[in-house]
Amino acid sequence: MAENQIPKVAILGAGNGGLAATVDLTIRGFSVSLWSRRIETLLPIQTRGGIEYSGVFGEGLIEPTLVTDDLGEVLIEAELVIIMLPTSAHFEIGQSLAPLITKEQTLFLAPGHTLTILPAALHAGGVISPEFCEVGTLPYICRRDENASVSISKCSDYLPFAAFPVNRVDKMFSLVQQVFPKIHAMASPLVTVFTYMNAIHHPPATICNAGRIENTDGNFFHYFEGISPSVGRLIDYLDSERRKVAMALEVETKTFVEHFHQMGYTTDEARKTRLAYEAFHQSIPDRFIKAPKSLDHRFLDEDIPYGLVLLSELGRLAGIKTPSIDAMIHLAEVCTGKPYRNEGLTLERLGLKDKNVDDLKHILNNGF
Amino acid sequence: MAENQIPKVAILGAGNGGLAATVDLTIRGFSVSLWSRRIETLLPIQTRGGIEYSGVFGEGLIEPTLVTDDLGEVLIEAELVIIMLPTSAHFEIGQSLAPLITKEQTLFLAPGHTLTILPAALHAGGVISPEFCEVGTLPYICRRDENASVSISKCSDYLPFAAFPVNRVDKMFSLVQQVFPKIHAMASPLVTVFTYMNAIHHPPATICNAGRIENTDGNFFHYFEGISPSVGRLIDYLDSERRKVAMALEVETKTFVEHFHQMGYTTDEARKTRLAYEAFHQSIPDRFIKAPKSLDHRFLDEDIPYGLVLLSELGRLAGIKTPSIDAMIHLAEVCTGKPYRNEGLTLERLGLKDKNVDDLKHILNNGF
Repeated sequence: MAENQIPKVAILGAGNGGLAATVDLTIRGFSVSLWSRRIETLLPIQTRGGIEYSGVFGEGLIEPTLVTDDLGEVLIEAELVIIMLPTSAHFEIGQSLAPLITKEQTLFLAPGHTLTILPAALHAGGVISPEFCEVGTLPYICRRDENASVSISKCSDYLPFAAFPVNRVDKMFSLVQQVFPKIHAMASPLVTVFTYMNAIHHPPATICNAGRIENTDGNFFHYFEGISPSVGRLIDYLDSERRKVAMALEVETKTFVEHFHQMGYTTDEARKTRLAYEAFHQSIPDRFIKAPKSLDHRFLDEDIPYGLVLLSELGRLAGIKTPSIDAMIHLAEVCTGKPYRNEGLTLERLGLKDKNVDDLKHILNNGF
Repeated sequence: MAENQIPKVAILGAGNGGLAATVDLTIRGFSVSLWSRRIETLLPIQTRGGIEYSGVFGEGLIEPTLVTDDLGEVLIEAELVIIMLPTSAHFEIGQSLAPLITKEQTLFLAPGHTLTILPAALHAGGVISPEFCEVGTLPYICRRDENASVSISKCSDYLPFAAFPVNRVDKMFSLVQQVFPKIHAMASPLVTVFTYMNAIHHPPATICNAGRIENTDGNFFHYFEGISPSVGRLIDYLDSERRKVAMALEVETKTFVEHFHQMGYTTDEARKTRLAYEAFHQSIPDRFIKAPKSLDHRFLDEDIPYGLVLLSELGRLAGIKTPSIDAMIHLAEVCTGKPYRNEGLTLERLGLKDKNVDDLKHILNNGF
């Protein structure tokens, strides 16, 4: 262990990522306290006396220092608080944490890409200068089962890291790096927003196959068969609107097709066409992935309120029109009957109501 | 023949309806001149010396008085000019007719539902007080083949009739009734706009199955399989916006489900649910109808620019928001790459730019 090792870490969330991180950090000698909102999620761990794991760390059972559904208890002496909850829980956890956290504690979202929703909730709850940091993706490829055993097939080699406010990034980076050495600092939490590419292709592929999904219970190849040329055109359009918003906010971002190719998901030939349709149609890893069984799925429930709504709202802030993104949000709301926009990352919930681009930059750099 | 029989009738358009009307009216003793823009369409008729027909009028060959691609020639002495062209041709035919028609000639659209697009084109072409009348549906169920033979399986028992301006309806009604005795006068050409129900269900069913249409060449049951519960919800939403616009313009209109049931297309049980999904899912006549083979189809190409765009534009005129209709138009434009709104029935092309509801009523009643 390094000399400046963080003595205690709290992990909020006992899903796939929360258990994988608990295993990883415990093995590496950290004292980990694990929290879940629901005691039922923790019961299998308490009954067994630990978390069984398999995969890249071998096989075994680790015992966290503490397993609790009491948020006050899990925070005691935790210098680093790792929030591994769905994006949809970021606002609520901010509200719950506001009266409990101290200035000495650093909040770390893994993954984040919800911009200022967490500090806005903290700020509304009375925290004077809320701070947090985040990585853009989950640090593990992993899966927990119903007995709270977790299999960890990979630890990410590259974790894009950002902090809010940006002027505090160095302090937070050196802290988190002790726990996750593979983090790489990015310019601001805005960058993760624009690399969240699922929001660009999941919703159109789902809505433009709504009839087939419901009629066949998703029994077709989502990417290979569902993303036809016209659906691909829609994805390209949504992507061009995403890039316009990014440009207005001075965030550099690749096209979806470039990004997809860089991840090794499609061929060089597909990349040359610059078409999402070819990118998916020539994607070997995605070839046999089936469609969702219904519209009641994260392809809409997560990627619209925490993806497209954020792009639309940032477009509104920057004065950039996003007609295809807005149409997509609206039709998904009608098809599912769910109020995605109101429950998503609106400027109001982000603490950015009536702000302009300069205000946003100032807030990201200096905090609320 | 009645005493006041119209001596000469011109029929513009040699498609399904144009040939059926030529057969029907020739058999009943009218002198019919038939026009098509393209000589190739007329060549099989000229070669054979007439139009072969089968169906409700028995079998035989009729010889029109004149078959020509010369618009000036076909209009000579024609008291009634029946326009049996796709709605997309109404603006262009108005421009072509403007310098040619006389005050004594009555223009009759069969079918119409393009509101003031024809008189607006005539007016722009110098006709002082343009008039026309229309029926809401094609007067025949019929099909021509490539040899210009036509099979006529039914003549409509009920033809909703309207005239522009409304204050000229009596004169036009008594004239057209001599040719089509089954016409029933409606309050104004606005009524046909709101009974054009295809616009409400064809576009969402097509866009929400875009992937499947292109992946299977339409090899599924369009209504029975393609209109799933969420697609049905979207249809219900579009329908509620249609009715809001109708209400703002004081046009009485049934719900889509009521209308569909009244036409005998679905069950009493489905009607009770008030859901488009049930109406289609329980529709016996629609049960085995296949989907379009591609998005390059009248379900979008006609029903969006001449259906949804008109509803959206009338909503704009009346101050009624139509977010689902607008989202549908936009996504269809993106998916197909076709500029449906600009090429459709905009207020500008209808001669209604900057008008309000009172202006519209005044124009419909009294003309331009």
